[in-house]
Amino acid sequence: MPSRYRAKLINSLSGFKSANLIGSQNSKGETNLALFSSVVHIGASPALVGFISRPHTVVRDTLENILQTKQFTVNQVNKETWRSAHQTSARYNADESEFEQTGLTPLYVDNIDVPFVKESHLKYALTLEEIVPIAANDTQLVIGKVTDIFCQPTAIRKDGYIDIESIDTVSISGLDSYHVSRRLSRLSYAKKDKQLEHITIDGDRVSK
Amino acid sequence: MPSRYRAKLINSLSGFKSANLIGSQNSKGETNLALFSSVVHIGASPALVGFISRPHTVVRDTLENILQTKQFTVNQVNKETWRSAHQTSARYNADESEFEQTGLTPLYVDNIDVPFVKESHLKYALTLEEIVPIAANDTQLVIGKVTDIFCQPTAIRKDGYIDIESIDTVSISGLDSYHVSRRLSRLSYAKKDKQLEHITIDGDRVSK
Repeated sequence: MPSRYRAKLINSLSGFKSANLIGSQNSKGETNLALFSSVVHIGASPALVGFISRPHTVVRDTLENILQTKQFTVNQVNKETWRSAHQTSARYNADESEFEQTGLTPLYVDNIDVPFVKESHLKYALTLEEIVPIAANDTQLVIGKVTDIFCQPTAIRKDGYIDIESIDTVSISGLDSYHVSRRLSRLSYAKKDKQLEHITIDGDRVSK
Repeated sequence: MPSRYRAKLINSLSGFKSANLIGSQNSKGETNLALFSSVVHIGASPALVGFISRPHTVVRDTLENILQTKQFTVNQVNKETWRSAHQTSARYNADESEFEQTGLTPLYVDNIDVPFVKESHLKYALTLEEIVPIAANDTQLVIGKVTDIFCQPTAIRKDGYIDIESIDTVSISGLDSYHVSRRLSRLSYAKKDKQLEHITIDGDRVSK
């Protein structure tokens, strides 16, 4: 297979992917913002989130910055920011901030030394927890511990579920396709020999 | 935070998650089928796909089986199978197959000793490549190399992109919410100082 064809095909296999902008900053104060489709839940307690970092690409700045400051932010991409988010993957120089180049707004919060994306409706700061080398293809799984979460309050439902559809979070398929969503339903906790039920957005049983 | 509230909240942070059933089989020929929302693209060349395995849960059978046979299948969940897929997370005994319990159909293909899900429109077999321990929370990143891909042919587009929306692939948010998608657009490869363009489903420029 030609390599571009192969890249598009293989990138489609894993299914819908999360769309997140990772904000970081080096020790000189230069900011970086990069789109990642590999952000993955690692665990809830402690709250750990990871992403796959490739070794020799434009996104390398992100890892270099995180190694310098031990902090980064993850910012969900939404229906208003998906084009700007995609544009961050252009090969800008290290001294060109993707914020300025794409029109996204850096937002700083007390005691956190790395920028958030103001336009994101669900964003959080992490401290570097672990860098796990992947021998198979020389990539790395970078894991952070969540320290601060900023979310539009109406999206957080009674049982802790965050309705990311209500804040227009998008997903990615392949390398370059962006999607909004339509909820089928939430489902009750699966138990052996018990029928599943659709539950409400707040996690309650639907009254019959 | 109470632990269930916390689990739902933290599981919502990473964004939309892929919905895949992992099929496996132990050396006695007992099958297992388990829903994972952590399947992630690791690399295109070689073609590597991974998932996060927790150490002490019902899904542990998957890892045990993979260690025994070195093979597994990944099967995208779609609009017809999402409820059955969710039900696989009930705590069945090792000798109860999730296939029988949930009504999904095991499908065997020549030279592959682990079952696919017949109802899945995009599925592939992998051989175990690497198990990467994650010290932070005692989980593991299990990585397989893709050996065989089975996909509804009409979904594979001219440039290699697989239109997973056309085969009704679903995504997950939080722990238990399922979503179908609506494409905003595919976007052209991002370049510095060049305007992004919407491209067609086949990857072509849209004629003006």
